[in-house]
Formats: sequence, structure tokens, C-alpha cells
Amino acid sequence: MTRPDGRAADALRPVRFTRGWLDHAEGSVLVEFGRTRVLCAASATEDVPRWRRGSGLGWVTAEYSMLPRATNTRNDRESVKGRIGGRTHEISRLVGRSLRACVDYKALGENTIVIDCDVLQADGGTRTAAVTGGYVALADAIDWLRKRGKLKGNPLVTSVAAVSVGIVSGEPRLDLCYEEDSAAETDMNVVCTGAGDFVEVQGTAEGEPFSRAMLGSLLDLGTAGCADLTRLQQAALAADRASG
Amino acid sequence: MTRPDGRAADALRPVRFTRGWLDHAEGSVLVEFGRTRVLCAASATEDVPRWRRGSGLGWVTAEYSMLPRATNTRNDRESVKGRIGGRTHEISRLVGRSLRACVDYKALGENTIVIDCDVLQADGGTRTAAVTGGYVALADAIDWLRKRGKLKGNPLVTSVAAVSVGIVSGEPRLDLCYEEDSAAETDMNVVCTGAGDFVEVQGTAEGEPFSRAMLGSLLDLGTAGCADLTRLQQAALAADRASG
Amino acid sequence: MTRPDGRAADALRPVRFTRGWLDHAEGSVLVEFGRTRVLCAASATEDVPRWRRGSGLGWVTAEYSMLPRATNTRNDRESVKGRIGGRTHEISRLVGRSLRACVDYKALGENTIVIDCDVLQADGGTRTAAVTGGYVALADAIDWLRKRGKLKGNPLVTSVAAVSVGIVSGEPRLDLCYEEDSAAETDMNVVCTGAGDFVEVQGTAEGEPFSRAMLGSLLDLGTAGCADLTRLQQAALAADRASG
Amino acid sequence: MTRPDGRAADALRPVRFTRGWLDHAEGSVLVEFGRTRVLCAASATEDVPRWRRGSGLGWVTAEYSMLPRATNTRNDRESVKGRIGGRTHEISRLVGRSLRACVDYKALGENTIVIDCDVLQADGGTRTAAVTGGYVALADAIDWLRKRGKLKGNPLVTSVAAVSVGIVSGEPRLDLCYEEDSAAETDMNVVCTGAGDFVEVQGTAEGEPFSRAMLGSLLDLGTAGCADLTRLQQAALAADRASG
Amino acid sequence: MTRPDGRAADALRPVRFTRGWLDHAEGSVLVEFGRTRVLCAASATEDVPRWRRGSGLGWVTAEYSMLPRATNTRNDRESVKGRIGGRTHEISRLVGRSLRACVDYKALGENTIVIDCDVLQADGGTRTAAVTGGYVALADAIDWLRKRGKLKGNPLVTSVAAVSVGIVSGEPRLDLCYEEDSAAETDMNVVCTGAGDFVEVQGTAEGEPFSRAMLGSLLDLGTAGCADLTRLQQAALAADRASG
Amino acid sequence: MTRPDGRAADALRPVRFTRGWLDHAEGSVLVEFGRTRVLCAASATEDVPRWRRGSGLGWVTAEYSMLPRATNTRNDRESVKGRIGGRTHEISRLVGRSLRACVDYKALGENTIVIDCDVLQADGGTRTAAVTGGYVALADAIDWLRKRGKLKGNPLVTSVAAVSVGIVSGEPRLDLCYEEDSAAETDMNVVCTGAGDFVEVQGTAEGEPFSRAMLGSLLDLGTAGCADLTRLQQAALAADRASG
Repeated sequence: MTRPDGRAADALRPVRFTRGWLDHAEGSVLVEFGRTRVLCAASATEDVPRWRRGSGLGWVTAEYSMLPRATNTRNDRESVKGRIGGRTHEISRLVGRSLRACVDYKALGENTIVIDCDVLQADGGTRTAAVTGGYVALADAIDWLRKRGKLKGNPLVTSVAAVSVGIVSGEPRLDLCYEEDSAAETDMNVVCTGAGDFVEVQGTAEGEPFSRAMLGSLLDLGTAGCADLTRLQQAALAADRASG
Repeated sequence: MTRPDGRAADALRPVRFTRGWLDHAEGSVLVEFGRTRVLCAASATEDVPRWRRGSGLGWVTAEYSMLPRATNTRNDRESVKGRIGGRTHEISRLVGRSLRACVDYKALGENTIVIDCDVLQADGGTRTAAVTGGYVALADAIDWLRKRGKLKGNPLVTSVAAVSVGIVSGEPRLDLCYEEDSAAETDMNVVCTGAGDFVEVQGTAEGEPFSRAMLGSLLDLGTAGCADLTRLQQAALAADRASG
Repeated sequence: MTRPDGRAADALRPVRFTRGWLDHAEGSVLVEFGRTRVLCAASATEDVPRWRRGSGLGWVTAEYSMLPRATNTRNDRESVKGRIGGRTHEISRLVGRSLRACVDYKALGENTIVIDCDVLQADGGTRTAAVTGGYVALADAIDWLRKRGKLKGNPLVTSVAAVSVGIVSGEPRLDLCYEEDSAAETDMNVVCTGAGDFVEVQGTAEGEPFSRAMLGSLLDLGTAGCADLTRLQQAALAADRASG
Repeated sequence: MTRPDGRAADALRPVRFTRGWLDHAEGSVLVEFGRTRVLCAASATEDVPRWRRGSGLGWVTAEYSMLPRATNTRNDRESVKGRIGGRTHEISRLVGRSLRACVDYKALGENTIVIDCDVLQADGGTRTAAVTGGYVALADAIDWLRKRGKLKGNPLVTSVAAVSVGIVSGEPRLDLCYEEDSAAETDMNVVCTGAGDFVEVQGTAEGEPFSRAMLGSLLDLGTAGCADLTRLQQAALAADRASG
Repeated sequence: MTRPDGRAADALRPVRFTRGWLDHAEGSVLVEFGRTRVLCAASATEDVPRWRRGSGLGWVTAEYSMLPRATNTRNDRESVKGRIGGRTHEISRLVGRSLRACVDYKALGENTIVIDCDVLQADGGTRTAAVTGGYVALADAIDWLRKRGKLKGNPLVTSVAAVSVGIVSGEPRLDLCYEEDSAAETDMNVVCTGAGDFVEVQGTAEGEPFSRAMLGSLLDLGTAGCADLTRLQQAALAADRASG
Repeated sequence: MTRPDGRAADALRPVRFTRGWLDHAEGSVLVEFGRTRVLCAASATEDVPRWRRGSGLGWVTAEYSMLPRATNTRNDRESVKGRIGGRTHEISRLVGRSLRACVDYKALGENTIVIDCDVLQADGGTRTAAVTGGYVALADAIDWLRKRGKLKGNPLVTSVAAVSVGIVSGEPRLDLCYEEDSAAETDMNVVCTGAGDFVEVQGTAEGEPFSRAMLGSLLDLGTAGCADLTRLQQAALAADRASG
């Protein structure tokens, strides 16, 4: 019952953050969870959507998408099909909600930050990589605004990180790769703050329904995994940016 | 800290199932959770999608939608806008996944059942009413197929029910109405089988992140609520249908 | 040559109006013409479309749609297909034109009323039921505006009702059910005011072209049917609402 | 109370058919009702839509559209807007139904004829010009099929022509131009066969509802106008084609 | 190696401009290059797009489209497909860019001219006919604005004309018809000003790549063809308009 | 009149090909022209589009797209807007045509190769980088097919490379960056084979029209630039792949 890459059941894949991967974006990071690679770009603009103008509050939103050949076989582009699929919609909403959980809109002032998470290569856990990398890009964009005197305070009230957990061959495992994800009986995504509280918990029985005890094990694994990711985010943000 | 309608924190709203509400559908039910009313119609056809033909397996899927004036103020139709919104996509997928958890595709044979869940009036908990009523419509459609000798066995391996739980003014509450839902700090949807196992757990911090202890209380409430709904489903299915 | 339900050629099906079927809408009615059931919801807002602002005139419009399993076999949703079909467009326009015929825009003032007519179950005559029920919902929404002092006068200059007539097996018949409608050689929809004048007349030869004499018989039947419906509308509006 | 162009109330505008206006189409005509100009192109193909294959029956359908600058002020293209409007849908359906009324599908055999009616310039009555010209293009396309031995018999069981009538300043008038159409209290389109029977009658009160007597006058005018158009169609079809 | 219509390799097809073909448009021309017929309508409005307001500058844009039966076999309408195809997009952009090359936006003032180029019949060279005819319609619309005192100066700094050239059976030829275009090894469109300079050069190897020498021959042919077309435009504009 | 990065007028920016940038694609390369970065992924499948089946011929096509934050300010996604813009359409078609110029379909057999060119960062010349990198990805995908014995011969009859040239401040320059591109009076894209012949030439006057002499200078620059790129492609393909 060893894992495809020989990891322990509670081990993350190698995680890498390359900050400043883009020259133009106010914050950007290429985040890698093993072979999963997501380019997160945070765009800050000094304005808010029409429905929020005059409120003194900022806005944060996210969009998730996958390149056509991120996966084993090519998928048609949603732009060519003329419509966003249900999965894309769902993940964009999850990433947006998760990142908004770190933000104090009053301190942000009437600024908007859009975080684009584009999956360049997919090997499981793309949405959790998007949240985890998205936070780093968001922090850099907020820093960019701060340095230019555009903020009313510190809008970052906490950090967020996310990881997938699942039951594979009856065993709870952390950070599933695609091969494990396809075989999982239960699949769960856990989004935690840096303080270890939950922002989002989404568990789905793909095969057999799962018991309360199994749910407990998965939450334990996910919480610990998010704590590891939080440390890696902090280390990445403490280092100098590659560029920008 | 009483609830808008005076219920106990762990009490469901009045739940009503009107089976056979439609004359044409193979299974149909008007399900009411208080003022929330969802019309669930199950359409059975002796065929499967192209990608499944020849497999000997059946297929179950669901579509969720809301009438424009189900809510307090009118919403534009998605058909007029020319695209399905993210929320609709997300809920349709949740309802489909939840209902598929009851089904043995081999026993269903190459038949397809589509469950349409149309919200006629919304007062919170529309997706959980859709799952809970959808199960009753599904059971009736399966019975319809069984009576016509179209099945290879009993495709219903369990039942499913769903309920919302949330933290309002710091208190965990069951089956939130719209007013509570809007004010909730944390909002969770729990989908359980008749045996009390989890099919889906989706919890979101709308305001403050939530602790593991609070998550535990919500799961307790949700599990008990689903057990109540399971009994109500059984009672409804044991009675004679209104029509059809 | 008896009709499927034994009615006389000039008899309506049982007609029922359930006012206040919805809790949120300013006017609502579930209208039934036999097994045809249409939910009509009138939404009143204190504004008009941009092109009408500052004119002192109100606006009334309607949208018609059918639930996917309103019919014998399931139809794909127009929201999923991403476009409104020709039939839906055509009927929405007919219902809107017909209801606008009752309204004095000056007396309505700069208020808009949208009447949504959603067919929950279809058994022929859905567009005529939509017009006939739509008028009742419109009247209730206007009453709602009147009670809140939003009107400049009485915007209802007349009432409207609609009915289908057709030639089946050579015989002119009133208020066709689906089975008759499918077999009709000629199909006509007649929309009349309460005073018995015509708002709209639409006759189509499905098979053989029809003579001027046959057209006369159909108009006689339709005019009488609308007069019956007008009396039923008045009785429904005279009674207390079920709710709201 | 004279008409803008001085015509008698029961007179058509100058009507002109230029057959063979296109080099490629199996049948084509540029039809003019005064300043209204519609290019009708009939495309014949030796196949039928999938749902009709193997039936031995043919199919006839029509599409109506308007160039952006056919009208006084420019309208956005429906291709650019990404959707067909309600008016276009409605007229396409009317033209198709009207032309199908002339056709014996058995005699046509498994051939399809599509009639495209593109309004190059609009001055009222574009849909009636489309039906009237569409018939001529259809007849030419059927002749094209006949000459190539593709038919099983004579598919043209009758001819069709259409004209608008309306009440302007209280007076019934034939074949309204745009200026009259905009001012009409009642607007009616009448489609008749060459034998003088009705294929379609569509009357709408734009302002005041109309009485049975007024409806009678309009039908008289429309029937006579269609008879005139029938004679003009016959004359055009008796002449040699300009080309093709 | 004679051409299908016996022309010399450097000869244009018969070119005809019918100005004022439409009654409503501020400028209009039916342009014919042999059997290719394009209706060009220029619509002038005293306003500019939102992004240009207050700049004192005007705007010119173009839209190209083809009627479904302009070609040998019928093409589906882009309005029905719900999207503009790549070819249509590309040609609309080319026509717009080419016509903008003649215009001084300051002299035009805050007026917009939209040139609609609708191909009524296609026999090769539709985009070059659109540019060439579009210029004539543009000139007439500018004249219309000038006569009404809406201009700040003369916005027409030059004229533009366009022609196709190509290599067929190894021979450079001017103004290809469809039959030649389909067989061409290389296809080039040349857009020149009245002074003989280039506005746009687009050459594509359909089969074998082409040498610098061959490119030179094609440019020679194209430049001479544009000079011929410029003379024909001038003659057409010097004559009285047919109408308007 | 020095260039923003100090290059000579006839010098390329630093060009880099990182082959095997993706693990799943049959061929992939991250191509960089200075700060412009395009990810080219070639997907090979053993099938052809329906219209080509049974012909024994293969098919090659391309899709170009830009990530929302590839540019200085964020652009909305075309998938969210629900339609592909004209610029994207035009470039996808150019890339596809250019790459098809290298391919012998008979030798390719009934295999399809789709080349996705996604711009991760844009600084001018994205379409020429897409063609140049797309060729390398195509060559790797063909090698992949060859190694698996799927080919009937060598489908690569030549190589293609592309570069932009333009007139900036009156001076012809090679390989414009965004700053130069925005300021260019004339902008031209040149696509050449490895043998130095032209596959595509597209020149546009953004400001003043350009003379035949200036066109000659631009073609000289572009031809030389393509020759340089051809050498760099050969060197990249001669080296071992980074991965895959």
C-alpha cells in the first residue's frame, strides 16, 4: 500500500513557490505541488465594482482555469466552447471565498485585487495549489499597494492554505496526486487559516459513504497539512522576490 | 436568541412531500421545507448517454434551477442571460453527486434518470430540499421502471437526505431559513445516507473561521437532522401517491 | 366525435385560479386549465427601463417559459442550451402584448411590472392560460402598488383573457387539450378584452387552409370562451387572496 | 386622410419580382413592395434533416433576417449580439409555416428546400414580402429539382401570398408602409392560398382593441390583396427568368 | 493558360459602383467585381463610442458579413450559430483598418461612421470589393455630414482601394475569381491609397512557399490594379448619385 | 534613436526554447523572445476530424490564447465573456496556416496534431513567438509519433519561423518589443521556411502608408531574422530534451 511516489501517508509532495514569475502583475507566483503547476497572478486596481463604490470597502475575487493540455489528454478550451464549465465555476468560487477570508475590506480601501489561477500542468490538487499559491500572490499585491501608500491599514488579517486529503485503499492520505485522486473512495479539500481554523471543508464520497470517524482522520491530516503549507508560505514570503 | 419562527435550534421546519404532483413524470414530488418549495421531477428513459452505451450500466443526473420570482426580488432568467451561473452549476453538481450515491448502476441497467429540481419559492435550504425531495422522486421513478420490468435488480442501495446547519449569533442551528442563512457566520450542508454515513459535507466560513469543536457541533446537528428527514422520506414513500 | 374528456365542443376545461400562491411576489396566481398549470408571478418595481426614464410612463412586460418536465417527455432547458428558442420568444411576446393592452401607462407612473409565466405542467393552451392567469397576477400587483400609494390613477383600463380554439375532425372546438391540439387542422388563439373586443387573433392552418366561414365559427367560439374566462377572473379577484 | 403615397385604401404598392437575381441559388427573387426589398434565395439539397431520413418525405424551412442598415437607423447585427431576437424568430417561423402550406412532402421526396429571406431595405410589410417572394423562389427551386428528375410528383399543391392590412386613422388600409404601420391602431397579416383560403391570420391591436366588424373589413381587404398578389406571382413565374 | 473568363493576367473584372442603392443610409453603394456583389452601407451618427467621448475625435469602423446563399452551397448563418466565425472577424478587422487609413479623426469631429459590407453574391475577392466599395460609401457619408455642417474640416486625407492577386498555374494574376482563388498557390490582398502607397499587404502561401521575386511580381500587379480601381472610384464619385 | 534595450536595429531579442516544459504533451516548449513567453503544447492523437476520415491524410491545427495577466493591465477572459475575440481568432488562424506549411499530410497519415500556444507573458511579438515555438513543439510531437511507428513517412517537409518587423521613428527594426510595437508606423509579420521562402507576409500601416522601398527594407530584415531563428530552432532540436 505504498504511494505512487513513495511518500508517507501524511507527507506533502515537494512544494515550491517562485514569486515574481511575471513581470507585469502586482503579485505573482508559480506554485508547484509535485508536478501540479499553477500560475497565480494578482492584479491590483484602484477601483471597486460598481455595486461597491462609495462604500469605502475593497474587493477580492479569483478566477481559476486550466490550459487545454495541462492534463493527460487535451481538453477543449472553454473560450472556444463559449461557456465556462461547472467545475471551473465551482473552483473559481471556492478560491475566491477562501482568499476573501484573509482580507479586511476596510483596511484594503476601495481597491480591487483579482487573483488569476491558471493551471499550466495538472497532477491532482490543482484547486488547493491555487488557494495556497493565490495567498502568496495576494500578499505580494497587498505589499505593492502598501508601498505606494494606497492602503488604509493592514488588510491581511490571517493567511490561508489548502490541501486535499482522501481515503485511498481504505487509508487516509494527504495531498493526493492524480492517480490517487482517481482511485479515492472519499475526497476532501480543507482550507485553513494560519491559526489552524477552518475556512472551508468540502468532503465527497466518490464511492462508499464515509463515517464520522473517517471524517475525523481526514480533518486531522488536512489540518496538519495546512500547517505545513503555512510554514512554507511564510518562508517564501520572507525571502526576496525573484523579480518585480 | 430565539429563531425567527420560534423553532428550537435543533428542529427542522415543517417538511412536506407531495408525491405525484406532476401527471407526466415517472416520479415527482413537491417538497416543502417551511416556505421553501422545490418541484422535483424524475424522468426515466431507456437509454444512456453515448459514452456509456454498451456498458450495461445506468446513469443518474440532476439539474437545479430557480424560477425568477422564487426570491424576494426578481432575478433575471439564466436562459435569457444565455448562460448558467456559477451557483446553479455548483448546486446541480452537488444534487447529482448526492443522488448518485444511492444508486447501483448495474442493477439500474442501461436506463437514465434525470432529476429536475426547480425552486418555485426560496426561503433558504433550497439545495438540501432538492436533494431530499430528489431522492423521493428518484425512488418513485425507479419503482416505475421496476413495475415495467426494466430493471436488473434493485438499484437503490440506500437513501439520501440533506440539511443545512449553521452558526448564527454564535449558536449552531439546524435547517436555516433565508433570514438566518444571510446572518450565519458559518454555513454547512450535510448529505447523509439513511444509515447515517456522510455522502457530502460542505462547510464555509462566511465571517469568522470556525474551530474543530464548532465543526463537531454542526456535524452532530446535521446528522440528527438527516436522520429525521430520512424518517419523513420513508413515511412519504410508504403512503399512496397522490396521483400517477 | 366526442372529446377526450367528454366535454361539449364549446365548453372550457375546469379552470382554477389560486391567488397568492407565492409569498414574495407582488401578485401571483397558479392558474389551471384542466391539467395545464401555469405559475404567474407579477413583480412590481418602482423604476422603468432606461429608455423610458423621465417619461412619466410605466412599463409592463412578460416572460414565458416551460419547466423541462412539464411535457410528456423531457425537454432540455433553454438555460443549458444557452439560448431561448423561437417558440418561447414568440409566446413571451404574445403574453406581453396582450397584458399591455389592459394598461394605462400614465396612470401606472414610472413603475415596471414583469409577469413571469412558468408552465409547471403542459396539456395544451399554455399560452392562453398564461395570458388569462397573467392578468390576475397583474391586477394583484397593481392593487399592491395602489395600497402603497405608488399610482397616479387606475392603470387597469380593461381586463384580458385568452383561449385556444381549433378545428378537430372538421369540428370547431373550444380550449383544446394537448391531444386535440396535436390533431387539429386549424389552431387559433383568441385574446379578448372584458368588453369582448379583440386584442389579438392568431390562426394557423396546420393541415388544410381554412375558409372565411370556418374562421367565423372559430371567432364565435373564442369570443364566448373569453367571456366565460372573464367572469371566472372577476370571481377570483373578488374573493380574498389565499395569502400575501 | 390620404395615404403618404396617395394610394387608394385598397391598393397595393408597386410590386416587382426580379427572378434569378442570384447566380448560385436554385431559386431566387428580389421582391419589392414599394421601397421594401427582400432577397429570397431558395437552396435545394438532396437530403433531409436527420429526424426525417427514411420517411420518404421532404422538408421546407425558412430563415428571415434584416441587414443592419435596412432601416432608418442602424440596428446591431444578431450575429454580433450572439443571439437571434424574438422578432426574427417569430417571422422566420411564420414564413416557414406559410411556405410549407403549399407543399406536398411526398411528392417532394427526400429533398430539403431552405428559403432565406434577407431584408435589404425595410419600409413596412417585410414579412409579407418575404412570404410572397419566398413562394416564387420556392417554385423556381422546385422547377430546378423537377428538371433534374429529383421529384416524385408535383410538390406544389397551391400557391401562397401574404399582405398586411391595418386600421390607420380609423380607416382599414391595405399593404401598409412603415409610416402607416407605426401609426396603425390595429395591424394584421393575412396569408392566403391561391384559392383564397387562409393559411395564417395574425391580428394585433396596437392601440384600441378592435371589434368583430372591423376584423371583417380587414379580412376583406387582405383577401383581395392576396388575390392581387397571386396574379402578380403567376405573371412573374410565367415570364422567362432573368438568369440561372 | 487562359483565365476562366478570358481576361488578361493583369486585367480587372468588370467593376461597377451603384451609389445610393439604399434610401435610408447616409452613404451606400452596391459594388460589383464581376459576379461578386457587395452592398456597402455607411451609417453616420453624431456620437462616438464611450471610450472616445470628449476627445474631439471621430471613429470609423466596419462589419463584413455574407448572406447564407451568397456562395455555391448554402452556409449556416452566424446569427443562428450564435457566434461570429474567425474568417468574418478577420475580414471585418481588415476592412475597418483599411478605411480608417483615409480618415483624419480631428476633422471628422465626434461623429461615428459604421460601414456595413454585406456580400450578396460571392465569386472571389469579396474582401477587396468590400474595401473598395466601402470607400465610396464612406465618401458619400462624409459628404452627407459636410452638407449638414457637422464636420470640422475635410476628414478624407486620401482614398483606398483593394484588390486580390495570386499565383495560378505559376502565373501571377490580378483580381482572382472564385475558381482561380481555389486553385491559387499563393493568394495576396493589397490595399493601396490613391497615391499608390501601401495600407495593407497580406500574402499567404496556400501551397508552395513563394520567393522574393514572385512577391515582387504580385506587388507590381496589385499596385497597378489598385491604381485602376482608384480611377473607377473617382469616376463613380464624380457622377450624380442614383438616389438619396 | 537607440532601442529600449539597446539592441541593434537588426538584432533579435534573446531567444530561448525550453523543450519538454510539460510532462503530458507529446511535444512542448516554453519559448521566450525577451520578456515574451509562450507555452506551446503539441497534442498528437491517432484520428482526424470527421470530414477527413478515410482520406489517408492527417491534420494540423493551432489555437492561440493569452492569459488575462500576460499584459500590463488585466484583460477579461474570453471564456468568461463567452466568445473568442477577433484578434485571437485571427492569430490562431495565422499560426495554424503557418505550421501547416511544413507538413506533408500523406506522410503524417490519419493523425491530428493540435498546437496550443498560450501566452504567459506578453511583450510584443507573441504571434511570431507562437509560430516559432509552435514549430519546435510540432517537431517533437512528430518525433513522438515516429518513435511509436505511427507515421507513413517524414511529414516535416521544411521548418517555419516567424518574426515581426516594423518602422519606428522612420527606422526599420527587427523583433519589436511592446513599447516599439505601440509606437510603430508600420508593423509587419514575416513567416519564412527554413529555405528562406515566404509562407506569410502581413504588413499594416498603423499611421502613414508605406512605400514600396520601405516594404523592401522590412522584408530584408524579416528574412534575415527568420534565418537566425531557424538556426536557433535547429540548435534547440539538436539538444536533448529537458524532460519527457
